[in-house]
Amino acid sequence: MSSLPFDAVLFDIGGTLVVEAEPGTATTDLSVRWIDGAPRTLAALAGVGLRLGAVTDTSVMTEADVRALLDVDGVSDLLGAVVTSVDVGAPKPDPAGVVEAMRRLAMTDPARVLLVGDRDVDRGAAAAAGCAFAAVSPDRPLHRVVLDALLAAGSSPVEAAAALVGPVDVAAAAAADARQLTLTKPPGALAELEVLASRLAAVAGAAPPPVPEPAALAVFAGDHGVLEAGVSPWPREVTAQMVANVATGGAAVSVLARQAGVAVSVVDVGVATPIPGGAPVVAATVAPGTADLSRGPAMTVAQARAALDVGARHALDLVAGGARLLVTGDMGIGNTTPSAALVALLAGRTAEAVTGRGTGIDDPTLARKVAVVEAAVDRARQAGHLDGLHALAEVGGFEHAALAGFVIGGAAARVPVVVDGVIALSALLVAESLVPAVAPYVIAGHRSAEPGATAVLDHLGLRPLLDLGLRLGEGSGAVLAVPIVQAAARLLAEMATFDQAGVAGRS
Amino acid sequence: MSSLPFDAVLFDIGGTLVVEAEPGTATTDLSVRWIDGAPRTLAALAGVGLRLGAVTDTSVMTEADVRALLDVDGVSDLLGAVVTSVDVGAPKPDPAGVVEAMRRLAMTDPARVLLVGDRDVDRGAAAAAGCAFAAVSPDRPLHRVVLDALLAAGSSPVEAAAALVGPVDVAAAAAADARQLTLTKPPGALAELEVLASRLAAVAGAAPPPVPEPAALAVFAGDHGVLEAGVSPWPREVTAQMVANVATGGAAVSVLARQAGVAVSVVDVGVATPIPGGAPVVAATVAPGTADLSRGPAMTVAQARAALDVGARHALDLVAGGARLLVTGDMGIGNTTPSAALVALLAGRTAEAVTGRGTGIDDPTLARKVAVVEAAVDRARQAGHLDGLHALAEVGGFEHAALAGFVIGGAAARVPVVVDGVIALSALLVAESLVPAVAPYVIAGHRSAEPGATAVLDHLGLRPLLDLGLRLGEGSGAVLAVPIVQAAARLLAEMATFDQAGVAGRS
Repeated sequence: MSSLPFDAVLFDIGGTLVVEAEPGTATTDLSVRWIDGAPRTLAALAGVGLRLGAVTDTSVMTEADVRALLDVDGVSDLLGAVVTSVDVGAPKPDPAGVVEAMRRLAMTDPARVLLVGDRDVDRGAAAAAGCAFAAVSPDRPLHRVVLDALLAAGSSPVEAAAALVGPVDVAAAAAADARQLTLTKPPGALAELEVLASRLAAVAGAAPPPVPEPAALAVFAGDHGVLEAGVSPWPREVTAQMVANVATGGAAVSVLARQAGVAVSVVDVGVATPIPGGAPVVAATVAPGTADLSRGPAMTVAQARAALDVGARHALDLVAGGARLLVTGDMGIGNTTPSAALVALLAGRTAEAVTGRGTGIDDPTLARKVAVVEAAVDRARQAGHLDGLHALAEVGGFEHAALAGFVIGGAAARVPVVVDGVIALSALLVAESLVPAVAPYVIAGHRSAEPGATAVLDHLGLRPLLDLGLRLGEGSGAVLAVPIVQAAARLLAEMATFDQAGVAGRS
Repeated sequence: MSSLPFDAVLFDIGGTLVVEAEPGTATTDLSVRWIDGAPRTLAALAGVGLRLGAVTDTSVMTEADVRALLDVDGVSDLLGAVVTSVDVGAPKPDPAGVVEAMRRLAMTDPARVLLVGDRDVDRGAAAAAGCAFAAVSPDRPLHRVVLDALLAAGSSPVEAAAALVGPVDVAAAAAADARQLTLTKPPGALAELEVLASRLAAVAGAAPPPVPEPAALAVFAGDHGVLEAGVSPWPREVTAQMVANVATGGAAVSVLARQAGVAVSVVDVGVATPIPGGAPVVAATVAPGTADLSRGPAMTVAQARAALDVGARHALDLVAGGARLLVTGDMGIGNTTPSAALVALLAGRTAEAVTGRGTGIDDPTLARKVAVVEAAVDRARQAGHLDGLHALAEVGGFEHAALAGFVIGGAAARVPVVVDGVIALSALLVAESLVPAVAPYVIAGHRSAEPGATAVLDHLGLRPLLDLGLRLGEGSGAVLAVPIVQAAARLLAEMATFDQAGVAGRS
């Protein structure tokens, strides 16, 4: 789905990708200390087809010297061009280095090139060469700088986010595992919490990882044309009424979030009826409800993109506002029907296997629901709509699209995302179809009672933290899991080691 | 095991068992509003064989009138004597009513009779009759008044507590269930959390129940002579070292408790080696470690009683200090061996089926451990030691005994107790053997990886809230479950109803 505003990204090195060496450090004493997990950012950008280069000022080093230094974590291989001021005979702000890098990357239009650097001479060189420029700064990590530069240049939020979802940090995960062995407990005794801590380290790129707090829940709400097909006993107006209830603190998830210290935001991405009484809701309506998926596509591809953008933008906004753990929530009468259709389509299951009773429907309604899902999935399959974007448009919901975008946004911001039940899990299939690298950023909070939820968990190899039989939606199961996620990180950070506590080891 | 200091308890009625009627209320307009769940207290006391009576001042009512009024919740049947001032022609402080009640209960020694009342005339009548007296007051619930009176008269803590473990309040549970149906969610959508809320209502005698907070964890620590038999790779000194680590905040459970707002106390009930460095620990050592259960009884029956008392007393103290949720923890190198033996003995399983790898032992050690458990259980069975007290003495540990007492103490104080893994669960079998009525006061926090834990859960029909594979002890699994327990109560109390939120019902 890429239509990014740039085809190439050039980076300054010292102060941008790696910590600047002390002035006067001998070339042979130089070693690489990456800034903000720079290799993950480069890998992400390369993964969406962007050409990458480095342009650096140095008094003595040639390309070969710099490449030798950067030949760790696969970075040298990601850089199609490495140009030093020694190579071109002119330091920045002279554009010679930038121009040479563009030549080597076969870039003819400088407006399609972004230069990222930390100094005024970088800005000057970019201007002289006709490139766009983005400045790194201590208060914004490198990946966020690039992401914001893509947005500023007109990229859609979900495309910008997708371009920044890099691999997780396996070295940090290994360091977390090693640290576990030093803590005052038998090896492995914290079981799933150790697996989780390792995952959090990989996402954060640090061991121990910071405790992922504060957490922020986003409840995406939308209505569903398929309600006309008689798949739920609840009237459509309940979506708007429950949106108000969540926003004013009376819903189950409101109570759970209050207890867990999780901030709640409610995003109207497609509610069909007026939301009562001035409840505080983010208004981002793509359309007042989807079309009836039992009769044709639920939405246009453009609408699907717009709803993906709502979710991605909201995730990025929450992280910019300080959130360090994202939590998915949803509200939409009828939304287990599109969820089942998405799961059937994207995980390759039968309608019957993944369609459940939702909020509690009787046998005739269930039979009708299975038939609706089956027909819609058949139609989508015949049309070849087996990718996340077209599956969304054919059989999805606006909150599903927003949730998929939200997951991609969270992963781009390197924040773990705790997903709730079948609605979020079906959206996760969409996200994973669009950006496969999101998977390790996701934590399954709770095993929903819906059969489609277990199908997705099995399909993606996820093990949920809780299994309390909830079948409520709203994000309730995910919010309940937040303290467990935070505990996993806190244990790794705060437990005493054998040495610290003076505890003897085993014989 | 009863040797209570009283054989009968007499109660004043108005202001003691039931809310006083407004002066001048016509007899026909009287109705019963129990104080502090009085029927539960009466049922508990009757359950341990105490004779019960009521002595009341009234201007017009006879025994028959009063019995007609009290003929709800089975109370009239529990009262072997009901005497009014009309019946005997003299109001309190005249002892005539008390004397008549003692006569009807066949009590010849007034010193073996306790009178409970709210007024000076009650105290006066007791003194005149030669009975003990306990005063109810607004700041102490009725069951606690009786319990403290038993303690003051020389009862052991565990016996006093056992006498106060009454039935839970099924009407409150039903009211909780009914309230769930009015809340803004599909019926039953909160699944296990609804079951839990119902249970909390039954324990508290209120719907919605108060949120059970603050929570207090007690970590009972002891050493085990059976370590000599080579059942663990860890040295005995680790018990004392880990006690210090828990008490000073460095252990896993310390970190988890900090996050969950759970107060931690550590009780040394039988640690064999000095606890390093002045860590804040409750010193209640029964003996410096048990004897080697592979060679003979682990402790004497008197020691088992003493350790039970430590636990019961600590539970009562924590609740008196404000705790409204109790959480079990344990520390004791080698303590999965006595746990397995207790489970085999009290749940009727083979040693092989319930003996696990504890903190992680190799195959030869496991084989040795199974053989030790099998031999000890065989010895106990042949001696007929199949009740909780004698099972404890033969194959238990001091922390197991204290944990059993702790559960009984919590139930007596009508506070739910969240139990942790196999050590606490094996202790729960002891508690349940001694006081079967404790069962509904207990919440299983986490499914330990030890096979003995699952055996107890199956035996008692308990479903743990969490299943994260932990095999650490300390109370770690139970503390992780505390926010879920509190959430269950909070949801019932704080969620909006359909009416409040203006949400439409299903069609």
